[in-house]
Parts: sequence; C-alpha cells; structure tokens
Amino acid sequence: MSDNSIKICSGFRFAGVHCGLKAEEVLDLALLLSDKPAQAAAVFTENRFPAAPVVCGRRQMDAGAGVQAVLINSGNANACTGHQGEIDVAAVAEVLAAALELPRERIFISSTGVIGEPLPVTTIMQGVELLTQSLDDDLPVTEALERAARAIMTTDKSHKIVGVEIETSQGPVTITGLAKGAGMIHPRMATMLAYLLSDAGIDRQILQEMLRRVVDKTFNRISVDGDMSTNDTVLALANGISGVNLTAAADLEAFEEGLLKVAQELSFMIVKDGEGATKTVAITVVGARRAGEAEKICRAVANSALVKTAFFGQDANWGRIIAAVGYAGVEIDPEMVNISFDQVRVVSGGLRDPDYHEADGAAVLRQDEFTVKIDLQSGEDEFTVLTSDLTHDYISINADYRS
Amino acid sequence: MSDNSIKICSGFRFAGVHCGLKAEEVLDLALLLSDKPAQAAAVFTENRFPAAPVVCGRRQMDAGAGVQAVLINSGNANACTGHQGEIDVAAVAEVLAAALELPRERIFISSTGVIGEPLPVTTIMQGVELLTQSLDDDLPVTEALERAARAIMTTDKSHKIVGVEIETSQGPVTITGLAKGAGMIHPRMATMLAYLLSDAGIDRQILQEMLRRVVDKTFNRISVDGDMSTNDTVLALANGISGVNLTAAADLEAFEEGLLKVAQELSFMIVKDGEGATKTVAITVVGARRAGEAEKICRAVANSALVKTAFFGQDANWGRIIAAVGYAGVEIDPEMVNISFDQVRVVSGGLRDPDYHEADGAAVLRQDEFTVKIDLQSGEDEFTVLTSDLTHDYISINADYRS
Repeated sequence: MSDNSIKICSGFRFAGVHCGLKAEEVLDLALLLSDKPAQAAAVFTENRFPAAPVVCGRRQMDAGAGVQAVLINSGNANACTGHQGEIDVAAVAEVLAAALELPRERIFISSTGVIGEPLPVTTIMQGVELLTQSLDDDLPVTEALERAARAIMTTDKSHKIVGVEIETSQGPVTITGLAKGAGMIHPRMATMLAYLLSDAGIDRQILQEMLRRVVDKTFNRISVDGDMSTNDTVLALANGISGVNLTAAADLEAFEEGLLKVAQELSFMIVKDGEGATKTVAITVVGARRAGEAEKICRAVANSALVKTAFFGQDANWGRIIAAVGYAGVEIDPEMVNISFDQVRVVSGGLRDPDYHEADGAAVLRQDEFTVKIDLQSGEDEFTVLTSDLTHDYISINADYRS
Repeated sequence: MSDNSIKICSGFRFAGVHCGLKAEEVLDLALLLSDKPAQAAAVFTENRFPAAPVVCGRRQMDAGAGVQAVLINSGNANACTGHQGEIDVAAVAEVLAAALELPRERIFISSTGVIGEPLPVTTIMQGVELLTQSLDDDLPVTEALERAARAIMTTDKSHKIVGVEIETSQGPVTITGLAKGAGMIHPRMATMLAYLLSDAGIDRQILQEMLRRVVDKTFNRISVDGDMSTNDTVLALANGISGVNLTAAADLEAFEEGLLKVAQELSFMIVKDGEGATKTVAITVVGARRAGEAEKICRAVANSALVKTAFFGQDANWGRIIAAVGYAGVEIDPEMVNISFDQVRVVSGGLRDPDYHEADGAAVLRQDEFTVKIDLQSGEDEFTVLTSDLTHDYISINADYRS
C-alpha cells in the first residue's frame, strides 16, 4: 500500500496468503483479526439464494456474539451448495477457532468466487495454517492489510482500502475499510464484500442501525451490471481498543459520518474498478413528485445498457437517457424535464436545449468522471446512483470468467 | 426476397426509396399502401416520452378511421421534438395524402432512428415523390415488399418479412408481416416497428383486442438489451380485399392463430438479429406459485447482463442464472428449483445435479438456439421470454451508433 496516509485502526491484525483456491499464484485467503471480541453488525444480500456463509453469518448476527476473527476466501463462493455448504462453513470456522484459540462463535466466514462448486475445505484448512504463520511474520501492518485486501479480490484490478480518523469528545477513533467489488455490482448490494473496522467502542444495536443507514446511502446506490450476488456482505466491527466509548449523541453522529465517508469512498472505488469500466458516472434525479420515484428513474438510467454503452462511446446521447426516464414506470411530465451533463444543460423542458452545442456535451463525456443530472421539476424527491460504463472489457471478462 | 414461399396478401402495394435521411445510399423511406381503407388496430410503446408519430398515431386510432397508407422513415425518430414534432407528422401526412389523393386521416406515420433531432420534413417530402414514382415502376410485389422492409431498418442486419395463409369457412385469407428491431428491444415493446397486413375483413374492435393479446404473447416477450424505445409501434391492417369477412368464432380463432404465428416469427427474427447477437435463447419459467411470478423471474434472467454474457461465452454458467432467479423479487424455495439447458438437467433442488457433466451443458450452449428451463415446482404459473446474448458487437454498435 503505497499511500501512507491511510489510517489503520488499532487492535487489528491482518494476513493474506495463497492457499490454492485459485490456480494462479495469487492471494486467495484473508484474515482480519481483532485483539479482542468486537461488537459486530452486518448487512447481507437480499438474494433468495443466499450462499452458505451468508446463511451462517445471518444466524451469527442474530445470536449477537462478538466477532474476533474474519476469514475470507476468494475463488469459491460456497453458494448453491445446500446443507453441505453450511457444514463446510462450520468446519472451516472450527479449524480457524482452534488455530487462533478462540471460541467458535467469534469466527465470521465470507466467500466469493464461483457459484455451485463445493468449498475446497482441505485447501482452506491448509491455508489457515499459512495464515497463522503469516501473523508471526511481523509484516508492517500496512503491508499485511494490503495482503488481506488483495486476497479477497476476484476480477478486481486493484485492492480497496480506506481509512479515516474521527475526533470525538473523548479522543480520536479510527475506521478502516476494505472491500472487493468488480462484477454483479447492483443496487441492493453486489458481489461485494466490505469490512468496516474500528477501534471505537459502541453498542451493537446502535452500530447495526447505523450500518443499515450507511449501506442504504452507499453500497446500495452503486451499479455495474445490474446483477445482485448471492454472497454480498458488509460487516462492521468495533473492538473498543481505542478506549473511546461512543455514547454521546454528537460522538455517535461524528462516527456515523466517518462510517459514511469510508463506505462512500469504497463504493466509489468499486464502481471505478467495475468490470471493464472506463467511466464513473453519478446519475442524480431531483424534483420527483413522490417518495421513491427519483430512485426508480435513477436506477432505470443507471442500469440501461444503451446509456452505459453511450458513456463508453463518449457519446452525449441524451435521447437514450430520456428513453430510460420514460420507461422507469413513473408518471412524469415530459415537458418539465431538464437534463445536464455536469454544468452543461442539454435538455430543457423535454426538448434539446436551444443553446446546447454537441461539442460541450462531448467535452464532459470525455472525462473519466462526471454527473448526469435529471430534474423533473415536479416535487422534492431525489436520489443518486453511481454507475459505470458498459465496455468491451466487461464482455471479455464475463464471457471468460466463471463466476 | 429469395424465399418465394412467403405469402403476400392481396390488395397491398409497397415501395421503399432512399430520400437522404441516412447519409449512406441506403433505403430510408417506406410506403405500405392498401387498395382500399383497412380496419386498423395498433399497440404503442408505454414509454412516458412517446415520440410525435406515436402521439399522433394514438389519436388516429382513437378516432377509429380506416388506414390506407403507412409511411415509415428510418434515420430520425421524431422523438423529444415537442409540439413541432406533431406538426411535422401532420405536414408529412398532408403531403402523402395529396400525392396519393387520399383523405389525410387515412395516412399513418411511423419514424425510427435518432432521438431529439427535428424531422427533416423537406427531405421526406422529396422522398414521397420518389415513393409515388416507385409505385409506377411495377416491380414484382415481393421485390417491392422487400424494399419497404429494408427501408425501415436501422442497425438491423437483415429485413424481416413473414407471411401465412389461413383457411376459413369462406375461403383463404393471408397475413403478411414486416418488422424492424435490433436495439432497445425489451419486454413491453421495443425499438421495434411491426406491420401486420391482411386481406381479411374483420371488425376493428375485434382486431384491436386480438392484436393486444397477440402482442402480449410475442413482441412483449422478447429482450435484447432491456431498453424500451420511445417509438415502438405494432400496427395491424385488414382491408377485406379477399372477400372473406371474419365473423364466425372458428374463423376468428383461426385468424388470431395466424396473427400469432406471424408475430411469433417476427419476434424470433428480431431477437435473432438483435444488436450483436450470436445466440437466441428461450428462457422458460414454470411452476411459480402466484400469477405474475414466473414473468418476474423470467425477465430478471432474460435481462441479466451476466447471464447474457455467459451465453456469449458459451459458458453453461448456471450460478449466474440462480443469482438472477434469486434477485427477481419473488419468494421462492431454493431447494425446489430445477434448471435444464435443453434436455440437460443442470440443477436439481437448488444444487448442481449429481449426474450433470459440464461437457453436456457446454454442448447445448454451443448451439445458436437453445432453451433454459427453470422449474420452481411450487405452482402452475409459467412464462417464456426470448432473449439474446450480450456481445462485443453490441458494445461496438451502441458505442458508435447514435440512436
């Protein structure tokens, strides 16, 4: 991790190894280890085929036990593996618990990768041994964290780590987040794993409510291909090792803002590194009449294959945006609709703006990042989704990669 | 049109010319002309930004006048053109009415192409002159029909014509259909224009109800990219020139079957010629618990970018299908789900079928056409959608083409 400015919260150790789940000599097994049990909160995929680690993780959260170690493998999703999949999660957790001398219920397991293949439990067990050895290697924490963040990657081009320090009335606390994304990134979670770690002390129930709000504003507002994975998980751990216990309203608010910031940055990194993506585009809908309408329109535009392909072609093709607005299933007044690309007004009152020049729109679309703003001028409801373009590389990656 | 077996209904003439709406020297203006006013029925896009010809066409259908001539231009959609767009439709209709010496209200106009540019009315007026000259050329009707079918193409690779003859108690009638498709092909209509012409005599109201049922079973069950156009139109004309008047229930039933067959074949041709498509795949969901649930799941799978890219990669990636089934928003029992590729059982009870061999699935996916059957084993509801794969050519076509 070349960026030394990333804040790493105290009381956590990290490891990432290659155990053989992936054919190539790349890292495929990660460990996040807290020095003491952390309050844990999680948000999981809404997919009706939740993978075995999601089923087990939900049960664990319901039980409310503290979490001390998180084991994450890439290369196999342990999804559509039935009851055997859950037995495999338990077996892996058992082995890690023994190796770390921790109670079984403090182990949290995530998996990402191919669906429908049995989890290679023996391979992971060997990996656990490598991980515990790796903990003894005394790597600098930044390097160890980077190895963990790399080990959870699938088709990601780069690892994703964000850290922030937050001032509270009792002193500073830190939140460090790591995530993987790349494909199946969609509204309502994604093939996405994100871990938000903090050394703050906080009540579990409060953390859970906070996490739900933060996820709804961040990870649930990104889209790469409109597909939703069976394995999506966002886990927040707070181990309290900073000595700062968050109870005052102002402190909790500051912490939630920090959590939001970390989640926002990770979300942005996920879209930016979306499979084949060359553009990161914020789609903002404002002025919708009723609650929820801006979101519907926003998602229709953000998921439109034609709109996303136009972004790739650097084509300021507002007609495709209009078409997507029109089929979102929301009653609108076409003659009230304005559309801007960044500061360039393209559509006014449902028609091409008389002062719009194609060259101005094209200049916006040549950028790597820009905003499409759709103003319905009919009310107060608004929503934003972060999306990517749809490219040749997306096709190549997904025609070849077995996920 | 090399296929001489296509039935062409009597009492219609056709023309297709190049008038200059498209830069290249390709046909861009079509005329379908009935020898006498025909009963007309139509189904239009549900997009909230209906193009001017759709707005005018709806009004015309509400007025219930017979239709005698249909003018269709490609190269410009006359969409998002506001009130001026409607004035332009009227102007073009006026010119054609004068040229053909027909009342203005018997002219039906369709447009397809770029959104948001003013309709080049003068160019089309010149085209109308070419069309009427072309009618005098006495081309063989098959050739004239092919020219009309080619003139309505945008990114279509080939023109689409289907004809059937139907036996009735009073003698035979014919239905001839022509269509364009290629992009923005989606459930609930598409950038799709389809014209179903018949020499049968039939009540207008009955024809309208019939057309609605047929469209719901055909054009509304195809998907190329999940986008819905501003211009979609299916128009049925019945001019009665065969002398056969359809009133007996059995005759009406036979006619509806014929209409369905023509619409089915045109739908199939549209998906097969979907932008960049190399595969035509029927997604069939059976055994859903409640009405409408099979459709929801079917559309989620048929529109999934990951599933469609796997088809392109000839990858029997059932995990992506499972994921799409799981996020369709329907309560399902994962352990009841079976999936087959043609006759090859891939998933049984939500898990990889124990007897499934990867090679068998791969063999199915190497075909140009196949069926994915998803059996939820929970009820009687079922649905089928015809979809295509998502390919490099789709990206190339849509990153470059301004639609």
